[in-house]
Amino acid sequence: MSERIGVWFVGARGSVATTTTVGALALRAGLAPPVGCVSELAPVARAGLPGLDQLVIGGHDIVGGSLIKRAEELATGGVMPSALLSALTEELGVVDGRIRAGIRSADGDQRAAAQRIEADLRAFRDDHDLSRVVVVDVSSTEAPATESPELHDLNRLESALDTGQSPLPASSLYAYAAFRAGCPVIAFTASPGPRLPALETVAGQAGVPWAGSDGKTGETLMKTVLAPMFAMRALKVRSWASYNLLGGGDGRTLADPTHAASKTATKAQGLEAILGHPVDGPLHIDYVPDHGDWKTAWDMVSFEGFLGTRMSLQFTWSGCDSALAAPLVLDLVRLISRAHELGESGPQPALGFFFKNPVGTDAHSLSEQWNALVQWCDRLSAAGQHP
Amino acid sequence: MSERIGVWFVGARGSVATTTTVGALALRAGLAPPVGCVSELAPVARAGLPGLDQLVIGGHDIVGGSLIKRAEELATGGVMPSALLSALTEELGVVDGRIRAGIRSADGDQRAAAQRIEADLRAFRDDHDLSRVVVVDVSSTEAPATESPELHDLNRLESALDTGQSPLPASSLYAYAAFRAGCPVIAFTASPGPRLPALETVAGQAGVPWAGSDGKTGETLMKTVLAPMFAMRALKVRSWASYNLLGGGDGRTLADPTHAASKTATKAQGLEAILGHPVDGPLHIDYVPDHGDWKTAWDMVSFEGFLGTRMSLQFTWSGCDSALAAPLVLDLVRLISRAHELGESGPQPALGFFFKNPVGTDAHSLSEQWNALVQWCDRLSAAGQHP
Amino acid sequence: MSERIGVWFVGARGSVATTTTVGALALRAGLAPPVGCVSELAPVARAGLPGLDQLVIGGHDIVGGSLIKRAEELATGGVMPSALLSALTEELGVVDGRIRAGIRSADGDQRAAAQRIEADLRAFRDDHDLSRVVVVDVSSTEAPATESPELHDLNRLESALDTGQSPLPASSLYAYAAFRAGCPVIAFTASPGPRLPALETVAGQAGVPWAGSDGKTGETLMKTVLAPMFAMRALKVRSWASYNLLGGGDGRTLADPTHAASKTATKAQGLEAILGHPVDGPLHIDYVPDHGDWKTAWDMVSFEGFLGTRMSLQFTWSGCDSALAAPLVLDLVRLISRAHELGESGPQPALGFFFKNPVGTDAHSLSEQWNALVQWCDRLSAAGQHP
Amino acid sequence: MSERIGVWFVGARGSVATTTTVGALALRAGLAPPVGCVSELAPVARAGLPGLDQLVIGGHDIVGGSLIKRAEELATGGVMPSALLSALTEELGVVDGRIRAGIRSADGDQRAAAQRIEADLRAFRDDHDLSRVVVVDVSSTEAPATESPELHDLNRLESALDTGQSPLPASSLYAYAAFRAGCPVIAFTASPGPRLPALETVAGQAGVPWAGSDGKTGETLMKTVLAPMFAMRALKVRSWASYNLLGGGDGRTLADPTHAASKTATKAQGLEAILGHPVDGPLHIDYVPDHGDWKTAWDMVSFEGFLGTRMSLQFTWSGCDSALAAPLVLDLVRLISRAHELGESGPQPALGFFFKNPVGTDAHSLSEQWNALVQWCDRLSAAGQHP
Ligand SMILES: NC(=O)c1ccc[n+]([C@@H]2O[C@H](COP(=O)([O-])OP(=O)(O)OC[C@H]3O[C@@H](n4cnc5c(N)ncnc54)[C@H](O)[C@@H]3O)[C@@H](O)[C@H]2O)c1
Ligand SMILES: NC(=O)c1ccc[n+]([C@@H]2O[C@H](COP(=O)([O-])OP(=O)(O)OC[C@H]3O[C@@H](n4cnc5c(N)ncnc54)[C@H](O)[C@@H]3O)[C@@H](O)[C@H]2O)c1
Ligand SMILES: NC(=O)c1ccc[n+]([C@@H]2O[C@H](COP(=O)([O-])OP(=O)(O)OC[C@H]3O[C@@H](n4cnc5c(N)ncnc54)[C@H](O)[C@@H]3O)[C@@H](O)[C@H]2O)c1
Ligand SMILES: NC(=O)c1ccc[n+]([C@@H]2O[C@H](COP(=O)([O-])OP(=O)(O)OC[C@H]3O[C@@H](n4cnc5c(N)ncnc54)[C@H](O)[C@@H]3O)[C@@H](O)[C@H]2O)c1
Ligand code: NA
Ligand code: NA
Repeated sequence: MSERIGVWFVGARGSVATTTTVGALALRAGLAPPVGCVSELAPVARAGLPGLDQLVIGGHDIVGGSLIKRAEELATGGVMPSALLSALTEELGVVDGRIRAGIRSADGDQRAAAQRIEADLRAFRDDHDLSRVVVVDVSSTEAPATESPELHDLNRLESALDTGQSPLPASSLYAYAAFRAGCPVIAFTASPGPRLPALETVAGQAGVPWAGSDGKTGETLMKTVLAPMFAMRALKVRSWASYNLLGGGDGRTLADPTHAASKTATKAQGLEAILGHPVDGPLHIDYVPDHGDWKTAWDMVSFEGFLGTRMSLQFTWSGCDSALAAPLVLDLVRLISRAHELGESGPQPALGFFFKNPVGTDAHSLSEQWNALVQWCDRLSAAGQHP
Repeated sequence: MSERIGVWFVGARGSVATTTTVGALALRAGLAPPVGCVSELAPVARAGLPGLDQLVIGGHDIVGGSLIKRAEELATGGVMPSALLSALTEELGVVDGRIRAGIRSADGDQRAAAQRIEADLRAFRDDHDLSRVVVVDVSSTEAPATESPELHDLNRLESALDTGQSPLPASSLYAYAAFRAGCPVIAFTASPGPRLPALETVAGQAGVPWAGSDGKTGETLMKTVLAPMFAMRALKVRSWASYNLLGGGDGRTLADPTHAASKTATKAQGLEAILGHPVDGPLHIDYVPDHGDWKTAWDMVSFEGFLGTRMSLQFTWSGCDSALAAPLVLDLVRLISRAHELGESGPQPALGFFFKNPVGTDAHSLSEQWNALVQWCDRLSAAGQHP
Repeated sequence: MSERIGVWFVGARGSVATTTTVGALALRAGLAPPVGCVSELAPVARAGLPGLDQLVIGGHDIVGGSLIKRAEELATGGVMPSALLSALTEELGVVDGRIRAGIRSADGDQRAAAQRIEADLRAFRDDHDLSRVVVVDVSSTEAPATESPELHDLNRLESALDTGQSPLPASSLYAYAAFRAGCPVIAFTASPGPRLPALETVAGQAGVPWAGSDGKTGETLMKTVLAPMFAMRALKVRSWASYNLLGGGDGRTLADPTHAASKTATKAQGLEAILGHPVDGPLHIDYVPDHGDWKTAWDMVSFEGFLGTRMSLQFTWSGCDSALAAPLVLDLVRLISRAHELGESGPQPALGFFFKNPVGTDAHSLSEQWNALVQWCDRLSAAGQHP
Repeated sequence: MSERIGVWFVGARGSVATTTTVGALALRAGLAPPVGCVSELAPVARAGLPGLDQLVIGGHDIVGGSLIKRAEELATGGVMPSALLSALTEELGVVDGRIRAGIRSADGDQRAAAQRIEADLRAFRDDHDLSRVVVVDVSSTEAPATESPELHDLNRLESALDTGQSPLPASSLYAYAAFRAGCPVIAFTASPGPRLPALETVAGQAGVPWAGSDGKTGETLMKTVLAPMFAMRALKVRSWASYNLLGGGDGRTLADPTHAASKTATKAQGLEAILGHPVDGPLHIDYVPDHGDWKTAWDMVSFEGFLGTRMSLQFTWSGCDSALAAPLVLDLVRLISRAHELGESGPQPALGFFFKNPVGTDAHSLSEQWNALVQWCDRLSAAGQHP
């Protein structure tokens, strides 16, 4: 019998986690085709990835409510067909039963909190006899971390935790606990998460692979194919305005400028990295509840061509954010699980394809990232078949 | 002293030829930076390309009028700054003096016509002591060629020409004569030109390199970066509507559906080749004189993601057609000249990057084409420096 | 007790008729608010209009199938919420039972056909004890009528019918029969219908009001507010390109150029009428099955301002065609029913507000049409309260 | 001989003033047609308006530089054709010579400043033997006025001025001085200007007409034709996002949020007034120097129709701000001059057609405003011909 693999969502009742959970159950029941799943494309699939039927889902969240209710709300908003849900009610209930109370940064003693998280992960692994547990952060975007020496040095961090201090943002506390429990981590949000020097040390000690950050699903995805086009054609981008309209839980969180700061930072970098110079132009994310989980992005690119001629390109992207994110989450779980199985450890730049702010690499162009991913999959594939 | 290279435009008084000519003169006089010139990007430039100051320009056209007048009209239409022209009046007059009367397909005896063209090319090469002459077809788009055995078999073609027949479209007659004169050919239009089996034989015998066809400058350029994005993300493109508005001489020609047929055929292929399945949706090119040389393309892509969710992407491309084409023409001249110098012969798939309907390759994705171009330039570079 | 009014759909199983039927039932059951219903706006409502609970629905169609099935298909396509339908199943079945077999133009003897239609209408009125029956043509768009003397002269028409000929398009045959049965007619399509001189005579003799033609619901609606803006600001519209993408039954019909000719003719007129000069630019309606009942229109307007400055406006309208049409159909039924009650007869220019090709008026500007409608409603209102 | 009328620009070297000046000179020299001039449309022209050849231009500004230089810069940016300028150099120089140093709010003693402004206006009127001088504020947008009792009560204002205080924003100081000099005022900006209760008293005492405020030239113009369309069709607007990109001097000023506050306030009101309920959605004005005087506005309207169906409309307006504003400035000058001639005094609601924030009226719908304007012109016309 093939091994079983755990998927542990931080933010397990959010839109992305709920859509991913419904999708995993629906796909393995043959109720929907794997559209949007990169891991089903031949050059990636050949890496020897685990099947969706091997996944066991659980997670943390700080809100209650039932998964099936969340799924129904999303279906009403057009994120998934209502018809799917009746067949999955029971299984969604089972996943619901595995969701544990999460933590908040403000919550008191972080040493105790980390121990509780770690214990939850270990219990999940043991209870379900899992070969490994992949922790996926799909919780609300946090504000950027406030600089402090504890974030840069593991010894200082440990001392701070030992003395009852709370130096970490919640996303980083989850990553800390996950690494300590020997779990691979996927940072799908723009929150600090594992991307603090002190935590990179923890990951190194644990010898687990991790990837991030901030899933690339819409406007930034477009930028990372369009900017290379301008570059390859020697056209000079003069300004690039980026406007995003979004409702839903994510929109609500990002309506708070301190939280949005993390996101606009990750969104902004690709352009400069690809074009080789800073590009003028506003970047807004506006919360419009009416739009629900649907993100409308309008971009206006002004560029200069031969003999100074001025031209423009504008696009309107109208995408369902969670439906774009969910298959990528499944891809990442399958890929990092395979990497873990083969003993890879540390940040995984080959997974940069999936992220706005890829760790360990400067490559932002989607086609370059694709080539890196495919080469990596070739390597994993050569490493022998998945049991 | 470095060698001199001829550039011979078929359609030398058209928008593209005029813009290219003005641009070549302006750039080498230091009056404008090489924006839009791919051959100035490091990985391409290293191929050892000839300088713009080595180029000597001439050509054929079937209309009279002066180049400087055409340039002034283009400047009024915003294709180039009027201010440039005063400094170039004299040099434009010199190029004007080298433009010879072209031929039309309907024109009588094609053997005689071909001989006249060939003689014009040889005279140009001799008079200016040129190492080579690159023939660039930037004349009006013709209708697709009517099938006939002469187009498939060189012996039959030669017999037909010997017996006073006129089996060739004009674009192909120019290519025939060019190959006979030992000239590399660039088919920048969607006309049949060199892309007839019988002519490929002529090119092979002459041992010259050639490239084509139909410069990729706007909507199709966009398609060949966006379609790979959908493919790499396993998103299913359900329909793709393509609308183009264009005035100018090119627009007028394409208002005739028989001529437009060549163009819509080249525009349509990339999508299916990249996505691996046919894609529904209209493709129109509409002539609106008011738009002049400015092409506005609006595309509406409808796609499906995870769990059947329907999304869309639309874009409006507002480009100056001739300003986009001209630097690519210069790139192609420099690249194929270098290839000729190094003894390359036959169709050059590595130049597919520049074309809607690339010869000798199935690669339509811009990034794949870029990689092929850069590799080829590496090879040219390794072959030794340009004298 | 208040009187009962019949609504008879030609094309009763089409998208528009089905959506209108579901809507009428849902609104009177209090299951949905009257969004989109002009007749619920105060200045129109005061005309003394009949209530939706007074309407009894029946009709003709040439296809079988059940209304509830059609409604379910539309709900799947997002035209209406599935949830509505369960509560209306029974009532929809009742309406279904009242749908009679329609006729086609090609069908043999038109005298007999007209008599059958007329008999169907009279039977409907008698069986349900209706004060009046409004006939609404929402069937597939026909090709423009072929010119013939019978269409211009009632005597000739009658003779032709008497001698077993078939001079009329189906839509006009329905209108003929309706007028003979003393029924007001609403021509919601671009088909010839009542708009033939010979039929206007029939309507005059019958003393019934009628209105048409071609419901104004999307791109043309936009044009009739934007063109007046340019006119009022003395801005010169230089070109206006209009592209429409549409699936559904209507899209399929209009994919046939002979049928589309009727529609593009009605769509084109408003612009010239408002601006006072012809306007260049293409107008396409493209059938893309994937789009279903959703019409996407993209328009690109190029205009000139002060000192020759060139500017542009583009818009993308993404509307659900049947959801836009249905409430207007209800409005028209209520308004023309009231007009009939008060003895109005002949074409009703005051209803031009609802149509692309308004009969009896040159007013195309939406605000002018609104003013005319409101004045007319004032007059109806003054005529005394509805019993 | 017909009388001469003064036009006095506050901000005489800005883009709008320069474009208006060039335009007035060009039109009266027959060098350009009156495109964009509402006052040339028959129903407005019949009001008996003064001709452009009667206008004498002068003004205040706080920057130096020459008008011809400013005009050349604008021509380079595409606001007007360079070719026009050579013929107007001399006349522009004459206008330049009439520009006096302006004042700033921060500048010391406002009583003295007001007296100097008033003296400048009187001198201009006397020197050129003008029947009247229309003062037009086209200077940089100021921040909203800080509330204070002096702004509400003329007595308190006068006392404050008498005691050397500076209670007024500069725009209001200009309006104060203009009214005292007996000049009609046009508030073309969103600055406080004449719209303070205390100043309305001054205008009343002076018996001069005035109009404002904030010229309606782009996005808001669109809103005031589109919102009525939704209202007349009973469609429910759910959200309306408004994004503006702008360079130029105006863009630079509005990049400062305190200044932009005035503008976003005037831009926001129309929608609610027309639709009768507040509408959610962001409204941004972003400064992108690269765009120059060209304003690109993208609006995304989400609306609901029958049975809850969700639809959208988006538009991209690409307009040249100063070219849109200039002819309206000329219209306003001619109209208010005529009103002054006929003894009209106080705020002129009939000129609301031209403004985002029309004084003395709640009408925001463009067609309603047009009707009011035309009626008013009928009245002016009836009052007898212009001498
Ligand atoms: N296309 C996409 O959807 C996309 C792309 C990139 C990144 N993201 C990111 O993914 C995350 C999830 O997006 P979403 O749309 O599902 O948002 P959401 O608001 O629907 O869900 C977030 C969930 O996280 C939970 N949560 C918040 N704080 C928590 C904590 N301390 N511990 C545990 N749970 C916590 C919330 O209760 C909620 O259930 C966001 O950060 C978003 O920015 C999404
Ligand atoms: N972005 C682009 O501009 C672009 C991209 C791809 C392909 N093209 C193609 O390049 C060609 C040129 O475009 P353009 O805008 O310059 O068009 P144009 O109409 O301005 O110029 C075409 C010129 O060809 C000349 N010509 C026509 N028949 C000829 C003949 N038999 N012999 C010699 N000359 C002849 C015409 O007289 C004219 O001067 C067109 O075929 C166009 O489709 C242009
Ligand atoms: N916004 C809009 O939906 C809109 C606006 C203006 C006009 N219209 C017109 O309204 C009409 C209906 O549109 P739809 O979307 O419902 O189309 P549809 O194709 O869904 O429905 C048309 C119906 O007419 C029936 N029909 C065809 N010929 C008939 C005949 N001879 N007798 C009786 N029935 C016949 C068909 O069987 C079908 O059920 C079309 O002509 C369309 O152009 C629609
Ligand atoms: N479509 C339009 O262009 C439009 C529409 C509505 C309103 N407006 C308003 O018109 C005004 C002018 O726009 P613009 O594009 O010409 O801007 P601009 O920046 O080009 O010109 C403003 C001018 O005002 C001058 N100025 C600033 N403070 C002054 C003072 N205290 N006294 C005298 N002069 C002063 C500046 O020096 C400058 O020359 C702005 O307030 C703008 O918001 C413009
Ligand atoms: Na061209
Ligand atoms: Na329809």
